[in-house]
Amino acid sequence: MKSDTKFLIVGLGLIGGCYARRLTALGHRVCALDTDPDAIAYALEEGIIARGAAMDEALVREADVVIFGLYPKALLAWLRAHQGALRPGALLTDVSGVKCGVVDEVQSFLRPDVEFVGAHPMAGREVSGVRNSDARIFQDANFLITPTARNTKAAVDAVHELAEILGFARISVLTPKAHDEMVGFLSQLTHVIAMSLMNCNDNPDLAAYTGDSFRDLTRIARINDRMWSELFLLNREVLVRQIDAFSAELAAVRQDLIDQDEADLRERMRRSTARRALFDKERRPT
Amino acid sequence: MKSDTKFLIVGLGLIGGCYARRLTALGHRVCALDTDPDAIAYALEEGIIARGAAMDEALVREADVVIFGLYPKALLAWLRAHQGALRPGALLTDVSGVKCGVVDEVQSFLRPDVEFVGAHPMAGREVSGVRNSDARIFQDANFLITPTARNTKAAVDAVHELAEILGFARISVLTPKAHDEMVGFLSQLTHVIAMSLMNCNDNPDLAAYTGDSFRDLTRIARINDRMWSELFLLNREVLVRQIDAFSAELAAVRQDLIDQDEADLRERMRRSTARRALFDKERRPT
Repeated sequence: MKSDTKFLIVGLGLIGGCYARRLTALGHRVCALDTDPDAIAYALEEGIIARGAAMDEALVREADVVIFGLYPKALLAWLRAHQGALRPGALLTDVSGVKCGVVDEVQSFLRPDVEFVGAHPMAGREVSGVRNSDARIFQDANFLITPTARNTKAAVDAVHELAEILGFARISVLTPKAHDEMVGFLSQLTHVIAMSLMNCNDNPDLAAYTGDSFRDLTRIARINDRMWSELFLLNREVLVRQIDAFSAELAAVRQDLIDQDEADLRERMRRSTARRALFDKERRPT
Repeated sequence: MKSDTKFLIVGLGLIGGCYARRLTALGHRVCALDTDPDAIAYALEEGIIARGAAMDEALVREADVVIFGLYPKALLAWLRAHQGALRPGALLTDVSGVKCGVVDEVQSFLRPDVEFVGAHPMAGREVSGVRNSDARIFQDANFLITPTARNTKAAVDAVHELAEILGFARISVLTPKAHDEMVGFLSQLTHVIAMSLMNCNDNPDLAAYTGDSFRDLTRIARINDRMWSELFLLNREVLVRQIDAFSAELAAVRQDLIDQDEADLRERMRRSTARRALFDKERRPT
């Protein structure tokens, strides 16, 4: 990434804020667009962006790299309305948690002289907004790039380099479909489980008795309903399939309890233990 | 707890080891029985017990307080075999994660001149054995005492005091039945969920793509199969009911996805967010 590369963040929330902080710290010119005047005012005060506005075509025109920190529907709407202002040759990328329905859709109507490469930084917090942004959440995190046949190697490499300078620990390239399958399991199913666990028992005294297990499993039950409902519904076919696979496993454990089948129960526990141990070992690349 | 109170730990595993470390550090005489010679040898070398053996009736006879760090079935078997060696007036307590089927059973055959008060320190690690014991796991943890009508106030108070000197953050008293109901939800259901999530997808590349959500939800998928299968089966009626309540909530989310019912999905997310926020606030007593 050249030192004079100019960035524009469209949608200055938690993740957009992290990008802005990190890229500004690296010496780049970073501007931002957000319909929330408070987000822009805060970012200007903090010095994490050079300029900002609700909309300013001059900022769009000057940007070499445009990073969309918007939800999928808002991203599509913004591009349809404003793609005319992009400079020829601009590189566009995003941060959204679903890729089918975003990447294909954008590429179907995008001007041929700019390029969009889908990306998904696998990092987040249980709070939202630029005021809570902190680029340290990228440090041990994975970054997924989801190119299609319409993308050039140069653009994919540039997004790879962007992920590197943002500080991500492991960067992977996969198709939008493989991404949505994986994320439907690793991220969306886990959120469905956490919210279901939190909602299925209304005993008000839980906190007095709990251990760490319940705290761990419900941390992500604090969920941004606007964002996650949009992501869930965009990926609903995958997510329903993942819920069904998980439910089948849960039902098998239940049946072991009914049958008092200690041997099968222990076999399932040994399997999960072995798989989790492998997972620990592979958590950090060496 | 008087300074000359003598403790005996029967079953010197992870939790028994934590008790031994802490009580020895407080200046008490702490001895231990364990059928694993390595556990005893290690604890003697480390100076966390004064004496130890596989079985030594002299150590049983001298103990004012006997703490069972055994699994429920082993606890019952030990007491049936060796209760004759206990000193009159001895206080017995345990650490096991299920209370019905343990407390009632013990009290049904126990000598009338000694007293057993059920207890459950809500702390643990994903590893086992005295070599992994570390009394710091008690620091922010909850401690549950489960007396019955057969217990005296003095004995319950003594176990309360024991929990205090062990360093637990919050000590609660409830019936064995209420305990098993609560633990069936907070601890057992969460372990069933974690192992089911770990086992329901055999993609070997998961680790390369995951975020923190999946790591959090599967931490406890590393599970001691001998201990947890025993606890699950002892509490199977409660646990099956908890699985069913959770499954019903999961099915409702699934139906929202099928129906594309964004309003209901968001309502469920807002409910889980509100409940989890309350939970955070109440996590530490002030």
